[in-house]
Amino acid sequence: MSLYSPRLNRLIEALRRLPGVGPKSAQRMAFHLLDRDREAAAQLAASLGDALTGIGRCPKCRMFCEDEACRYCSDARAGHGQLCIVEGPADLMAIEQGTPYRGRYFVLMGRLSPLDGIGPDELGLPQLGALLDEGWVQELIIATNPTVEGEATAYYLAEMAKTRSLRVTRIAHGVPMGGELEYIDGGTLAHALSDRRAV
Amino acid sequence: MSLYSPRLNRLIEALRRLPGVGPKSAQRMAFHLLDRDREAAAQLAASLGDALTGIGRCPKCRMFCEDEACRYCSDARAGHGQLCIVEGPADLMAIEQGTPYRGRYFVLMGRLSPLDGIGPDELGLPQLGALLDEGWVQELIIATNPTVEGEATAYYLAEMAKTRSLRVTRIAHGVPMGGELEYIDGGTLAHALSDRRAV
Repeated sequence: MSLYSPRLNRLIEALRRLPGVGPKSAQRMAFHLLDRDREAAAQLAASLGDALTGIGRCPKCRMFCEDEACRYCSDARAGHGQLCIVEGPADLMAIEQGTPYRGRYFVLMGRLSPLDGIGPDELGLPQLGALLDEGWVQELIIATNPTVEGEATAYYLAEMAKTRSLRVTRIAHGVPMGGELEYIDGGTLAHALSDRRAV
Repeated sequence: MSLYSPRLNRLIEALRRLPGVGPKSAQRMAFHLLDRDREAAAQLAASLGDALTGIGRCPKCRMFCEDEACRYCSDARAGHGQLCIVEGPADLMAIEQGTPYRGRYFVLMGRLSPLDGIGPDELGLPQLGALLDEGWVQELIIATNPTVEGEATAYYLAEMAKTRSLRVTRIAHGVPMGGELEYIDGGTLAHALSDRRAV
């Protein structure tokens, strides 16, 4: 016999599928919702259903999009002539929240990883090629993560841009603001030193 | 203008109402569900709706219950003559999972806290009184938390049992298994010493 009654069990199992939620947290969430905040449970159920039917992907930048016109693909943004490539929606949001960048984006929804069967097609790179051929892009800003796969993806993207004679840049890697040299890993420090800039 | 589109915003706000989920986690959960696991989102929405309509409270023990007969209020359990009082459903589950106790329970769904307007009526103590008057209870086991409010509640419960001439016990407080004396707080250690038992 399961420890929980069937419906409670299903709810806890469903909550466990959220990222970062283990069995104890899932139980805590289920009890909280049932005991103290049934209205929040109803709101969550409704907004999940609403999001599933109403949120799709922008055909141009591959970001989540729920309207005809994607907010990140406006003509005003294209006017800057910059296209920033990120791995996922959270990276786009981080740039949008933390920087004054207001050019256009392209969201890969992953990174090149041949062992996992993720190649150029899965990342929409043919689509990106078509976007670059539209002619308004002057600078391709590569903002993939500094991991092995992220670097491989960056290399591939840079080649794509070079065949089209576009300017390609990569966001800087080095010591983070507020970081202390003493505690920074060697790889980052080596990067920071080799990419030093004149002041 | 909000950073997110309206539906995405509503979903993130709804996820933030889960206990222990901040803005970053809520965003991560929303992106994960929309990007990688739409089936989990559908499952969560369905099981939330199902739980809201199907899970109520047992009229006897106040635990979550979805059937006519509460699994914790069977006659077989009453046969043990023990009634364990806990503050919440998670406490009941912890005892059920971690101990061989198979008597009956009464879930307070809170603790006495006059400043927050939580008195005996809010904790269903009249209902508990009726339960004690049924005559099958021989021992009242008080398992409220060892906090100020938990102790006050325990005192109140003990008084209720004493007026009915029932045996009252309180779960032991002391050094946890695997704990090291060196790192235990003074209050716990004082408790452990004063409650020492003959071996």
